[in-house]
Amino acid sequence: MVSQSSSQWVYGFGKNEANIGAGNKNLLGGKGANLVEMAALGLPVPTGFVITTEVCTAYYRDGQTYPSDLKDQAMKGLAAIESSVGATFGDAKNPLLVSVRSGARVSMPGMMDTVLNLGLNDVTLQGLIAQSGDPRFAWDSYRRFIQMYGHVVMGVDGHDFESILHEYKTAHHITNDTEISATGWQEIVTQYKDLVQRVSGRAFPQDPQEQLWGAIGAVFQSWMTPRAVTYRKIHDIPEDWGTAVTVQAMVFGNMGDDCATGVAFTRDPSTGENYFYGEYLVNAQGEDVVAGIRTPQPLSRAAREKEGSTLPSMEESMPAVYAQLNDVRLRLESHYKDMQDIEFTVQKGTLYMLQTRTGKRSAQAALKIAIDMVAENLITRDRALLKMDATALDQLLHPTIDPKAKLHVIGHGLPASPGAASGMIAFTAEDAEDRAKEGHDVILVRIETSPEDIHGMYAACGILTTRGGMTSHAAVVARGMGRPCVAGAGSIHIDMSTKTLHAGDVTLRDGDMITIDGSKGDIILGHVPMIDPQVSGDFATIMGWADDIRRLGVRANAETPTDARVARKFGAEGIGLCRTEHMFFEPSRIQNVREMIFAETESDRRAALAKLLPEQRKDFIDLFEIMRGLPVTIRLLDPPLHEFLPQEPADIAAFSEASGIPMAKVHRRLSELKESNPMLGHRGCRLGIAYPEVYEMQAHAIFEAAATCDVSVEVMIPLVGMRDELRLMKAVVDQAAKDAEQRFGKAITYTVGTMIELPRAALMARDIAHDAAFFSFGTNDLTQTTLGISRDDAGSFLPAYVTKGILPKDPFVSIDRDGVGQLMEMAVSRGRATRPDLKLGICGEHGGDPDSIQFCEDIGLDYVSCSAFRVPIARLAAAQATIRKKAVI
Amino acid sequence: MVSQSSSQWVYGFGKNEANIGAGNKNLLGGKGANLVEMAALGLPVPTGFVITTEVCTAYYRDGQTYPSDLKDQAMKGLAAIESSVGATFGDAKNPLLVSVRSGARVSMPGMMDTVLNLGLNDVTLQGLIAQSGDPRFAWDSYRRFIQMYGHVVMGVDGHDFESILHEYKTAHHITNDTEISATGWQEIVTQYKDLVQRVSGRAFPQDPQEQLWGAIGAVFQSWMTPRAVTYRKIHDIPEDWGTAVTVQAMVFGNMGDDCATGVAFTRDPSTGENYFYGEYLVNAQGEDVVAGIRTPQPLSRAAREKEGSTLPSMEESMPAVYAQLNDVRLRLESHYKDMQDIEFTVQKGTLYMLQTRTGKRSAQAALKIAIDMVAENLITRDRALLKMDATALDQLLHPTIDPKAKLHVIGHGLPASPGAASGMIAFTAEDAEDRAKEGHDVILVRIETSPEDIHGMYAACGILTTRGGMTSHAAVVARGMGRPCVAGAGSIHIDMSTKTLHAGDVTLRDGDMITIDGSKGDIILGHVPMIDPQVSGDFATIMGWADDIRRLGVRANAETPTDARVARKFGAEGIGLCRTEHMFFEPSRIQNVREMIFAETESDRRAALAKLLPEQRKDFIDLFEIMRGLPVTIRLLDPPLHEFLPQEPADIAAFSEASGIPMAKVHRRLSELKESNPMLGHRGCRLGIAYPEVYEMQAHAIFEAAATCDVSVEVMIPLVGMRDELRLMKAVVDQAAKDAEQRFGKAITYTVGTMIELPRAALMARDIAHDAAFFSFGTNDLTQTTLGISRDDAGSFLPAYVTKGILPKDPFVSIDRDGVGQLMEMAVSRGRATRPDLKLGICGEHGGDPDSIQFCEDIGLDYVSCSAFRVPIARLAAAQATIRKKAVI
Repeated sequence: MVSQSSSQWVYGFGKNEANIGAGNKNLLGGKGANLVEMAALGLPVPTGFVITTEVCTAYYRDGQTYPSDLKDQAMKGLAAIESSVGATFGDAKNPLLVSVRSGARVSMPGMMDTVLNLGLNDVTLQGLIAQSGDPRFAWDSYRRFIQMYGHVVMGVDGHDFESILHEYKTAHHITNDTEISATGWQEIVTQYKDLVQRVSGRAFPQDPQEQLWGAIGAVFQSWMTPRAVTYRKIHDIPEDWGTAVTVQAMVFGNMGDDCATGVAFTRDPSTGENYFYGEYLVNAQGEDVVAGIRTPQPLSRAAREKEGSTLPSMEESMPAVYAQLNDVRLRLESHYKDMQDIEFTVQKGTLYMLQTRTGKRSAQAALKIAIDMVAENLITRDRALLKMDATALDQLLHPTIDPKAKLHVIGHGLPASPGAASGMIAFTAEDAEDRAKEGHDVILVRIETSPEDIHGMYAACGILTTRGGMTSHAAVVARGMGRPCVAGAGSIHIDMSTKTLHAGDVTLRDGDMITIDGSKGDIILGHVPMIDPQVSGDFATIMGWADDIRRLGVRANAETPTDARVARKFGAEGIGLCRTEHMFFEPSRIQNVREMIFAETESDRRAALAKLLPEQRKDFIDLFEIMRGLPVTIRLLDPPLHEFLPQEPADIAAFSEASGIPMAKVHRRLSELKESNPMLGHRGCRLGIAYPEVYEMQAHAIFEAAATCDVSVEVMIPLVGMRDELRLMKAVVDQAAKDAEQRFGKAITYTVGTMIELPRAALMARDIAHDAAFFSFGTNDLTQTTLGISRDDAGSFLPAYVTKGILPKDPFVSIDRDGVGQLMEMAVSRGRATRPDLKLGICGEHGGDPDSIQFCEDIGLDYVSCSAFRVPIARLAAAQATIRKKAVI
Repeated sequence: MVSQSSSQWVYGFGKNEANIGAGNKNLLGGKGANLVEMAALGLPVPTGFVITTEVCTAYYRDGQTYPSDLKDQAMKGLAAIESSVGATFGDAKNPLLVSVRSGARVSMPGMMDTVLNLGLNDVTLQGLIAQSGDPRFAWDSYRRFIQMYGHVVMGVDGHDFESILHEYKTAHHITNDTEISATGWQEIVTQYKDLVQRVSGRAFPQDPQEQLWGAIGAVFQSWMTPRAVTYRKIHDIPEDWGTAVTVQAMVFGNMGDDCATGVAFTRDPSTGENYFYGEYLVNAQGEDVVAGIRTPQPLSRAAREKEGSTLPSMEESMPAVYAQLNDVRLRLESHYKDMQDIEFTVQKGTLYMLQTRTGKRSAQAALKIAIDMVAENLITRDRALLKMDATALDQLLHPTIDPKAKLHVIGHGLPASPGAASGMIAFTAEDAEDRAKEGHDVILVRIETSPEDIHGMYAACGILTTRGGMTSHAAVVARGMGRPCVAGAGSIHIDMSTKTLHAGDVTLRDGDMITIDGSKGDIILGHVPMIDPQVSGDFATIMGWADDIRRLGVRANAETPTDARVARKFGAEGIGLCRTEHMFFEPSRIQNVREMIFAETESDRRAALAKLLPEQRKDFIDLFEIMRGLPVTIRLLDPPLHEFLPQEPADIAAFSEASGIPMAKVHRRLSELKESNPMLGHRGCRLGIAYPEVYEMQAHAIFEAAATCDVSVEVMIPLVGMRDELRLMKAVVDQAAKDAEQRFGKAITYTVGTMIELPRAALMARDIAHDAAFFSFGTNDLTQTTLGISRDDAGSFLPAYVTKGILPKDPFVSIDRDGVGQLMEMAVSRGRATRPDLKLGICGEHGGDPDSIQFCEDIGLDYVSCSAFRVPIARLAAAQATIRKKAVI
C-alpha cells in the first residue's frame, strides 16, 4: 500500500474558502465540483467541504478503511464551516447542522442521496429551538433527520416511518403535515426512535460525530449496492471512478414566510424559450417542492402570465431575492454556456444556491436553445453543435403519440425502432400487403420475421413481434426502413391458426386496430392520435450548421425508391449500401430467383437470370433517377441461397406446385443448401466465385441502367477475404461495363471496391487495395467474426455481458473500438499505403451511431452510411466528430 | 516493357562448357539444373543447353513472344553442341540429333515431356544411316521422332500412331517391334507422315530449325494447359515460376549390343538397403525400359542374387561400364547427400548420364537411408532429419493392407483418416458398441456422424460415411482417435430403415464384413489381411534424434485413457487439449448432462452437476495417472448445450420417457437452444459466464483429482474474447483450487490460461495476458472466424478455392500464415509484452501439420499439441523446424 499521508482528501468551499477544484468532477464529483465552482464565481453557496472520490477508491482498495489523515482534514473542514456560520457542531446552544450528500462524476440512482439536518440530537435540538425561536420547525427538522438517517444509514424501511406519520395523522384527524404541531412532531420523534431501535437493534445515535461518519460511510457503502453496480455497468461508468461526499452547512427554507425553496431551469426545457422557468414554495424545504403536496408557484411574472397561474410569482412576492436569483441565472448561463437546472433556498431573505447542473431538455428545445445561444453570442456554433445529443434527434424524425391522448396499453416489448403507428392487425406478410393495397394502414404482427416477410414489412406502417431482440431481423429491417417496431413482446401471445392475439385478457383478431410506440415499446389498443415530425425551422438550421462543419460524407443504406427518397429528403449525399438481394424477395421475382437456384446447369441458370435482368435493371434505373448526380454503392448478391427458398411445409408445397419441380427435388436442394453456420457459409462473393453468371447478370443490370442515368456507380463485392476473390469478381464486373459501354457507345463512370467485413480482409488490406477503388466497412459482420458472436444468437448471453460490464456496450450498436476498431485502423492504414486515394466508408449499422461516427472521423474514413432515417443524426454526429477532432472548442 | 537485350537466356552444359548455373533449379528447371550440375561434376553428360525459366515468364508477359536475342543465344548453344559432338544440325552427311525436354523447378505432370531424335528429316535420315551403318535403327529413330513430335507438338492423338503400328504388325504377323525391319519402319514412317498431314492439315516439318522452335514453343505452351494449371494450383506452384527447356545432343542405347539404357536408384527405395538397385536393357532406348515389353535385367550381381533373377547383371555383362556407373552412383550420393534416381544410356560402350534426381522412397526406406547415411558420415543428423517427409511417417503408424492381398474394391471416398481396418458393418453407434462388446471388430457405417455417435466411433475400429469432407465430424474425430476413416463416399448408398448398404450392384447388410483403407479412400468387400505398424528400430532412432534437436514441445490432444496411452507411447510430453465435453457424451452420463440443461434454477442445475462431479473426477484421475509427471491442459466445457440434447424424434421421445420431462418441455428447450450460427453462439466461456456452477463443478473435479496425482494442471478457458471473461472464470477456478487445497491440505500445482481462438483475443492479447498464464491457439476456430468460413459448410466452396488458386492450401489443414498467422504473431508479441514467461502452444488440428509446425517454431511457440497418432510426425516436424530456423545445414 502506498503511503498517502501527504494527500489532500478534503476540499473546502464557500465565501472565505480556497474554492480549489472548481469544476473538477473527477475529484469532487458532479455535485461537489459545481458547488465549489459556484462558490468560486462568488455566488452565495453555504460553506462546506468535499471528501474526494479518491477516498472512495482508497476505501475499497484498503479493505474498507479510510486514509489515516482523513479525519484530521475533515475536522478542519468542519471547523471552517463552524467559523463561517458562527455555530458549533454538537453545541447545545448554537448547534451547527449540516447536510451530507453523495456525488459521483455523473448523477447515479441507487446511491445514497442526501441526509439533511445532521447534527441534531436531543440536546442540540434545544439549541435549535432557542436559535430559531420555532419549536415546531426544530422538532420537524429532527424528525426529518431521524427519518432520512434511519432509512439511508441505518437501513430502516422508509415506509415504516411513513406509517407512523400516517397513523398519527389518522388518529388526530389531520390531513396535511403542516397541521402537525410541535408536540405532535415530538411524539412522532419518540416513535421514530423506537422504530430505529427495534429494527436496527441500536439506539438512534446522539453523538454528532458518529452521525457524521455514519453518513459518510453510508455514502461510500452505497457505491457498491447491487443497484448502483448494475447502473454503472449499464451506463458504462467505471467502478474506480468512485463517489465524493459533500458536507455543507444547512440552510432552511422553512423557517418562516421570509424563507423559500425552489428549483428552476434557466430556460424552458420543453420548448427552449428563453425565460426563467421554475417553481418555488414559501416556507418549505426542497423535498416539499418535489413531493407535490403544495402547489408550487411560478418564478417570474412572465412565466406566471404564460402559464396562466393564479399564484403570485417570486418576482412579484420577493422582488429583491428574485432579482438576485435572476442575476445568478444569467451568470450561470454565461459561465457554463448552457441551460442550467438549479436548486436554491431562501433563508430569512438570504439566497443560497444549493445546486447547478446542465439541464435536461426535449430534442426540440435543444435545437432552439442552441440556436438562441449562438444568436446571443453566448456560444459558438461549434459549441452549440457539440452540446446537442445527436441520438435525441430521432424523436423529431418519426410520428409520435400525442401526449394528450388517453392510452390503453395492453403490453410492452423492446423499443426496437422509433416512432409510433396505428393500423389494422395483419398476421402474415401477404395479408399486410393486401390490406395496404386496399388503402389501410397495417401493423404486421408476427412471432418473428424472416426475409420472406420483407414485402409485408414494407407494406406495413409498423411491426410487432413477440420474439427476438434489438438486433432481431424485425428490429434491424424496421430500423432500416424507418418503420416503428416493437420487438420481443413476450407477454403477447399469437395464435397463427386462428389469427388471434392475446394480451392479458384482451383478444384481438385479424383486422382489429392497434397502435405501437416503437420509441417506448408500448402496445396500445385501438387508434391513437399522432404528432407529425418537424424537420424544418430550427432543425434545418442546425443541420445546415452541421453540414458546414462536418468532414465526413453521409450516405444512406437504401434499395427501394421510397427509402432513397427519404434519404435524399434527410440530406443523404448518396447511397452507401444498396443490398441487391432485397430486390430479389419481391413476390413477382422470387419465382425466377428460385428457378435460378434450382437450375442444374450453367445454361439453365443463365436462362433464369435472363428473366431477372430486366427487373433488376428497372430497380437500378429507379434508384439512379432518385439519386441523380450522386454516388450509389451497389453490393452484389450476398446472402446464402437458402434464404430465397421456402421453408414452411405449406410454402414448399406451393412452390413445388407452381414451379413443377417435384417435392423430392425441392427437399433435396433445401437439404443441400442447409448450413450449420450460414453466416460463415456459402455466401457473399463465394456465390460469385461459384456462379459468376449471377454477378455477371447483376453487373449487366447495373451498367445498362447507369448508361441511361447521371450517376456515379460503385460496385461492391461482399465478403472478400482474399485478394483473388476480388480480382476474379472485378474482372466479371469490368467485362460487363465494357459490354455496356460498347452497346451504349458511351463511357460509364464506375469503380469497383469491396466490403471489409472479415478480419482477414482487414489484415490483408494492403493486398486487397490493389484491386479495390474503395473499402466499405461492413461492421455488422466484422463484429460478428472478430468477436465470434452471432448477432442472431447473441440474445441469450450478450445482454448479460453488458450488464456485467464484460463489454462496455453492445458491440452491434456501437463499434467495439478495442477489438474491431483495431482491425479497421489496420485496414485504413494498410489500404491507403497501397492506394493513397482509396475511398473509405462504413455501411454497417454502426454508421448511424454517434460514438461510432466519432471513431470513423478519428480514423479518417471518407463517409458513413446509415439507414435513411438516421441520416440527420449522422450529419450532426459527423459535425460533432469533426469539432472534437479539431479540438477548437 | 523492360528492354532485356543484355540478359542471358541460354546456359550451355557438357564437357567443354561453362556449366554455370549448376543446381539453380529456379533458373534452369529441375532437369536442366541437374544436368548442368552433373556436367560440372565432370560426369559424362551429353552436351546441351538450357533455355531459362525467365524466357517462359517473359514469353507470357509479352503476349507470347520471345525475347529478341533468344534465337542468337540458342544458335550459339546449338553450335557448341555441334562442335562437341562433331556433327551438324540438319547436315545431310553427319547430322546432329537433339532431344528437347521441358523442366520446371519441380516435376509436373501435364506438361510436354520430351521429344527425342529431333533434327531427323528425309535428308538427314540418310546421313544417320551412313553414320550408324544401321538403316533399321535410323528408320526406327525417324518414326519415333515423328510419333513423339506429331503427338506433343502437332497435336495428333498418340493412339492414332499406335494404331498404324498395330495394324502393320497384325498385317505382317509380327509380335514385337524388334521384329520390324528397316523397310517396315520406312513404310510406317510414310503412314505416320500421312497421318500428321491429315490431322494437322500440314506436312510433317522437314526444316530442323522449324522442328526445334516448334518443340521449344510446345514446351512453353504446355505450361498453360488446363491440366498443368490445375496441377500447379493443387500443388501450390506459382504460375510465374515458368518452365525451362533443355536441348541436348542425342545419345543412343539402341545402336547395337554394346549399347544399353537403364534406370536405377542408388539404394533400394522400398527397404532403404544400400545396394545398387536398378534395371537396364541392352540395345534399347529409355522408353523401352518403361514400356515393359522386354524384361529388364538387374544392374549388380548382388541385386541379381538378391532378386533371384536369371538374367545377367550389368556388373557381369558390361563390367567396365558398370564400374564407371557405380562410380557415378557413389559420386552422386556423395555430392547430393541423398539417394538418387538416375537414368543413363550406354552408346557403343560409352556411358552417358541423362538425369539424376532425388529418389522417392517408402517411409520405412527413408528411415533406413537416413540412419545409414549418417553412419556413413555422408550427412549430418540435421540433414538426415530434414530430408525426411514428416507426413509420410503416418504410413508407419497405422495398420496397412497387405500389398499381396487381392482386393475387391466396391467404392471410394475421401481418405479421411489413415490406416486400414476390417470389421462387421454396424449402422448405428449402439450396434457398433454392442458388437464390439461381443468381441467383434466393427466398421461404423453412417451417412454422417454427430457427437452422439462418439461412443460408437470409439467402439468401432473404422468409420465410413457417405457424406461430409476431410473436415467433417467423422473425419476430424476419427483422426483424433486414430481410427481409419473413409468419408463422403458418395457412390455408396445407405438405407437406414433396412440397414443395408448399396455399392453398385453389391448389397451389404448389418453384420457383413467390410474393409476400409483410410489412407487411400478405398472400400473393400470382406476381410483383408493387414500389416502391423512398426514403431521400434529405425523409427525409434530417428525419433530420438528429433527429440534431441527440437525446441518445440509436443503434446497430444486426448481425453480418453486409450488416447492418453497411445499419446505417451508415441512420445507425447503431456496433454495440450483435453476436451472435457467428450467425457459428457458417455451414455451413462448424458442423462445427467441433460438434466443439468433442463434444470430451471441454479439449485436444480447444481443438483445435476453434483451427480456428474464424481464421474468427471474419475476421468481426470485416470488421465492424470497415465500422464503422471507431465502437464495436462484441460479445457472447460466448450460446445453449445444443444449438442448434448437428442435431435431425432425417436431419441427425443426416449429421453422424455426416461427423464419424465414432458415432450412439450423437451421441444421448448430444444427450440430455445436452437441457434442460427452455433459456432458463434452461446458456447465456450459464455456458458461459464451464464452458468458459473458448471465451470465450478469441472474445476472441483479437476482439483480433487489433481490433489491425489503427480501432475501439473493447466486449466484452459475457451472462446475468450475479452479480458473480463477470463478474469471472471479464473476467479471461479482459483476458488475451486483454494477449496481443494484446504480440503486435501496440500498445494496443487496449476495455472489458468486461455484458448486464443477469436480474432479479438489475438488483438487484445496484451490485456488478456494479465490473467492468463498460458495461451493455446485454437487454430480451428481462429481460422473459421478470421476467414469467416465455417468448417462444416466449407465443403461447398472451399475445395474450388484451392483448385482455383484463390487460397494456396486448405486453411483448415495448414495455417493460413498471411491472415491467421498475422493474428497469431500479434498475440505472441503482445502477450509476451505483458507477461514475458507466458507459455504458448497450439491445440488446433494444425498442431500436427508440418508446415504449420514450422510456423509455430518461427513465431516462437513453446509447444504444439496434436492428435495422439500424429505425435511422431509432430516430433519430427518440430525437429525439422528447429533445424531450418537455425539454418545450419
